[in-house]
Amino acid sequence: MEVGRTMLEKTKKAIKIRNCTMRELLAEALGTFILMVFGLSSVAQVVLGKGNTGQYLSINMAFGIGVTMGIYAARGVSGAHLNAAITITQWVLGNLSWTKLAAYITGQFLGSFMAAATVFALYYDAIYDYTQGNLTVSGPTATAMIFSTYPAPSVSLQGAFFTEFTATVMLILGVLVIQDEKNNAALKGAQPMLSGMLVLGIGLGMGLNTGYAINPSRDLPPRIFTAMAGWGMDVFTADHSWWWVPVAAPILGCLAGVFIYKACIGFHNEPDHETENKKEEAGTETSKL
Amino acid sequence: MEVGRTMLEKTKKAIKIRNCTMRELLAEALGTFILMVFGLSSVAQVVLGKGNTGQYLSINMAFGIGVTMGIYAARGVSGAHLNAAITITQWVLGNLSWTKLAAYITGQFLGSFMAAATVFALYYDAIYDYTQGNLTVSGPTATAMIFSTYPAPSVSLQGAFFTEFTATVMLILGVLVIQDEKNNAALKGAQPMLSGMLVLGIGLGMGLNTGYAINPSRDLPPRIFTAMAGWGMDVFTADHSWWWVPVAAPILGCLAGVFIYKACIGFHNEPDHETENKKEEAGTETSKL
Amino acid sequence: MEVGRTMLEKTKKAIKIRNCTMRELLAEALGTFILMVFGLSSVAQVVLGKGNTGQYLSINMAFGIGVTMGIYAARGVSGAHLNAAITITQWVLGNLSWTKLAAYITGQFLGSFMAAATVFALYYDAIYDYTQGNLTVSGPTATAMIFSTYPAPSVSLQGAFFTEFTATVMLILGVLVIQDEKNNAALKGAQPMLSGMLVLGIGLGMGLNTGYAINPSRDLPPRIFTAMAGWGMDVFTADHSWWWVPVAAPILGCLAGVFIYKACIGFHNEPDHETENKKEEAGTETSKL
Amino acid sequence: MEVGRTMLEKTKKAIKIRNCTMRELLAEALGTFILMVFGLSSVAQVVLGKGNTGQYLSINMAFGIGVTMGIYAARGVSGAHLNAAITITQWVLGNLSWTKLAAYITGQFLGSFMAAATVFALYYDAIYDYTQGNLTVSGPTATAMIFSTYPAPSVSLQGAFFTEFTATVMLILGVLVIQDEKNNAALKGAQPMLSGMLVLGIGLGMGLNTGYAINPSRDLPPRIFTAMAGWGMDVFTADHSWWWVPVAAPILGCLAGVFIYKACIGFHNEPDHETENKKEEAGTETSKL
Repeated sequence: MEVGRTMLEKTKKAIKIRNCTMRELLAEALGTFILMVFGLSSVAQVVLGKGNTGQYLSINMAFGIGVTMGIYAARGVSGAHLNAAITITQWVLGNLSWTKLAAYITGQFLGSFMAAATVFALYYDAIYDYTQGNLTVSGPTATAMIFSTYPAPSVSLQGAFFTEFTATVMLILGVLVIQDEKNNAALKGAQPMLSGMLVLGIGLGMGLNTGYAINPSRDLPPRIFTAMAGWGMDVFTADHSWWWVPVAAPILGCLAGVFIYKACIGFHNEPDHETENKKEEAGTETSKL
Repeated sequence: MEVGRTMLEKTKKAIKIRNCTMRELLAEALGTFILMVFGLSSVAQVVLGKGNTGQYLSINMAFGIGVTMGIYAARGVSGAHLNAAITITQWVLGNLSWTKLAAYITGQFLGSFMAAATVFALYYDAIYDYTQGNLTVSGPTATAMIFSTYPAPSVSLQGAFFTEFTATVMLILGVLVIQDEKNNAALKGAQPMLSGMLVLGIGLGMGLNTGYAINPSRDLPPRIFTAMAGWGMDVFTADHSWWWVPVAAPILGCLAGVFIYKACIGFHNEPDHETENKKEEAGTETSKL
Repeated sequence: MEVGRTMLEKTKKAIKIRNCTMRELLAEALGTFILMVFGLSSVAQVVLGKGNTGQYLSINMAFGIGVTMGIYAARGVSGAHLNAAITITQWVLGNLSWTKLAAYITGQFLGSFMAAATVFALYYDAIYDYTQGNLTVSGPTATAMIFSTYPAPSVSLQGAFFTEFTATVMLILGVLVIQDEKNNAALKGAQPMLSGMLVLGIGLGMGLNTGYAINPSRDLPPRIFTAMAGWGMDVFTADHSWWWVPVAAPILGCLAGVFIYKACIGFHNEPDHETENKKEEAGTETSKL
Repeated sequence: MEVGRTMLEKTKKAIKIRNCTMRELLAEALGTFILMVFGLSSVAQVVLGKGNTGQYLSINMAFGIGVTMGIYAARGVSGAHLNAAITITQWVLGNLSWTKLAAYITGQFLGSFMAAATVFALYYDAIYDYTQGNLTVSGPTATAMIFSTYPAPSVSLQGAFFTEFTATVMLILGVLVIQDEKNNAALKGAQPMLSGMLVLGIGLGMGLNTGYAINPSRDLPPRIFTAMAGWGMDVFTADHSWWWVPVAAPILGCLAGVFIYKACIGFHNEPDHETENKKEEAGTETSKL
């Protein structure tokens, strides 16, 4: 039965893309989609399962696994940023052109939005059963936090900003120590697993205040989706319009993390002249941080 | 004491099989048996232990470990499908002959059925203690869900179908990103571990609605076993005859997952002409997807 | 400050052992000691912590980690059996002489006994606080199960025997699929981790009936220790003198597991004549199974 | 936008350190900082989240992940001790000069103190909400144990000392079996992960009595921080001035662990004359233990 293979071959001829930037956009989209479906669906399962089908730890683990799988998907093509804060940092450091910046972020937002829609479809029945059709941001049957993050009641806006900033610093420190080949990098084939473990670790300790968005691409597109899908503009106005914090703080945290790593380890290991740049080109985008 | 070794040698001469397809059938049987004993026994332990000897997370972990061990068992011989949806997809894509299709699925079903029987024997005492001998599909002491999956009460049949479809899409996307050597494959020796992690991730987020069968070979043979072992035809009629959903939906999901991966990543990485096919032959069956 | 190094050098000269069998005994002792301290202390922490410092899953994980660390300790010297059932199976298959059989089991029992004593010392205060000094095998403040296994009340002796038999079959199947270099072995450096994961998996699903001893060296020496340390002969007479089951059943299970693996996979991969035996000699003992 | 890269280059020229000892101090500081932020923040999340955002297992996992990430950060430069007990042991064995001893411990204490300050800032709002501003070492809203360890009420000072001693013995045994290249070392790239698993294992079984400090650099600097930040001198006087136990016992345990490993495995594998020392120099500091 060669029909299936023949069909695939024909489709390939029809849609094969040779444009590099377009392929990077698609890879970022698929990688972020995978990351987000694993992550968001685990939040849904814990919230809607009322404690019988998971716990906070399940969510931490699922985001970790999502990151691992998402990186395996995209790293070969785009370097697997899957996070607008990393993409913007690369652009600030001169490793990414304006065009690529736009392509990467578009891909990430597309993938993340699609993932939110997929998880909404997946748990449509369960959400309606749980909320009686009343989609809210707060209250006993709130469900908006399945899709995007909201701060804990006891946390001030400054505290929330500092939390997102610091958690992203830890994320970037972890990413760099895993990948810096001038220092003590992990096996290339094991790096995606370690990145997942890193995100698990952040969730275990830095999730209480803000739900560890640490990534504009993880937080903003699902928030836009919920605004459109029935939760309304509350998702933006809630908690003193907190929505911009998980967008802005991770970008600053990412830049600060790169600087801290360079100051403690990176600068002192690097050669004085950047004549080695050529050699680095072979590496993935992220390793240039 | 060479007696043991001598006996093994004699047995080997007597039963050694040179037929390739028969060996693949046996490998699929053993691999699926291992996968299913780990998985089903963990469900039994959580249900019958009344919360003292495990939790939902234990089941997620046990299926993951079962997948890892099952793949180590079978990959060297058959490529370790362990899932009729993957086998059928390979056949649709022209990678598997009719004979092999039959052999693989027979092996998987045999292994899965044997695993259900083993777990039933293992927990015979505990099941009779828990149910007072009354083997039911629903009610407070229901035990049929130890062996095969049943949907949550709040989920419609369409919702259940969509869940099984989507969860299998995620399974295949994960399998492909881990294995695609033209993209960014994991270390070959670590792939079985990552496949286990993938199934753990699916259980953490996509198990609430339907119990994530995502595999006809995981669900149907144990269901047949329960029908024969005392639960009766209820296992087929329950929940609006739901039994066919975890058989049909994963097959469609598997095909869709292959297409999504190809459209986003695979097509654009492949050479234009399939002249490289020879080189691929050395790979495992699954890597041809 | 070279004092420390000088002292170490002197001690080395004094106690350095060149006898191979003695070194294997010591390696098995240290490996089993490490395995058992991790395992038993986790049971103690869960029992004595009354649910605040761990859960059943913690015990499963700790035994897995103990196995991993124990194998790293002993594999280079003795092949890391750490389990009398594996040692006896090797002897039955003619891979181990009578002398080595005795040395390995002596080492394992020594290490296991020392580990029980260490965990008893570690939790001496906590055990006396928990039991008010009344060391019992059953009842609300029973503590004997910290050290060795006891069957669940609802399980018959035959059921318990079958459980230990089957769980050991799964253990050996797992060990073989991870290590069989003619089939699809894991990376050598990752095998200890996978063995740990395997034992975790067995605990997740096959622990309810009997507490998954699956190893005479894990169960008998700590039982002897408890008999001497204050729990009395009850540890042997309890549950219809169950103590011999986790000694005998794993040995049979281990042999059966080897046979099942050979019948499904191993025989058909092996060359017809055992002329390759020389090459195998380089491998570890366990890989000869 | 080359501005970012240009700025980094300028800063590099300004602050680049060529002094080897200073770089080791910085690497130990960063590694310990990473370890401690993951660890302490997870304790904070479990305590302040009142059981909704984690459990004892989360803390065990977070310290494991912190160790893994901390080792990846520092190993390339300093060998990643991250523990004053290991540093002192290396110095006693003549592998470290007085100057390096001072530099390593200064780095570790600096990193650990900074981590305590970071976690305090991170959870400032939540701590004040939880305690109503009353920072105490004991009582229903005690929070000092977020930062440093305190023994369980039922444990005597000798018992606590023995626990910290034994747990550190297990830590060092684990570190050595993972790293001893003359025996059966793990893959170099996987060793940090295994070290994390080791610390997870210690937490699963040896945390009940004393909270497993097993490291002066983990316990003392955060204790000093709490004394300064509002908890007062109670952090030193509490529990019969217990504070010195997690400083002294791990040092002795570390030395004892090295000796036990050498006596059981190491001595017998080593060559008689230390002529091979040159070759070892290439290894990391820790592997010289």
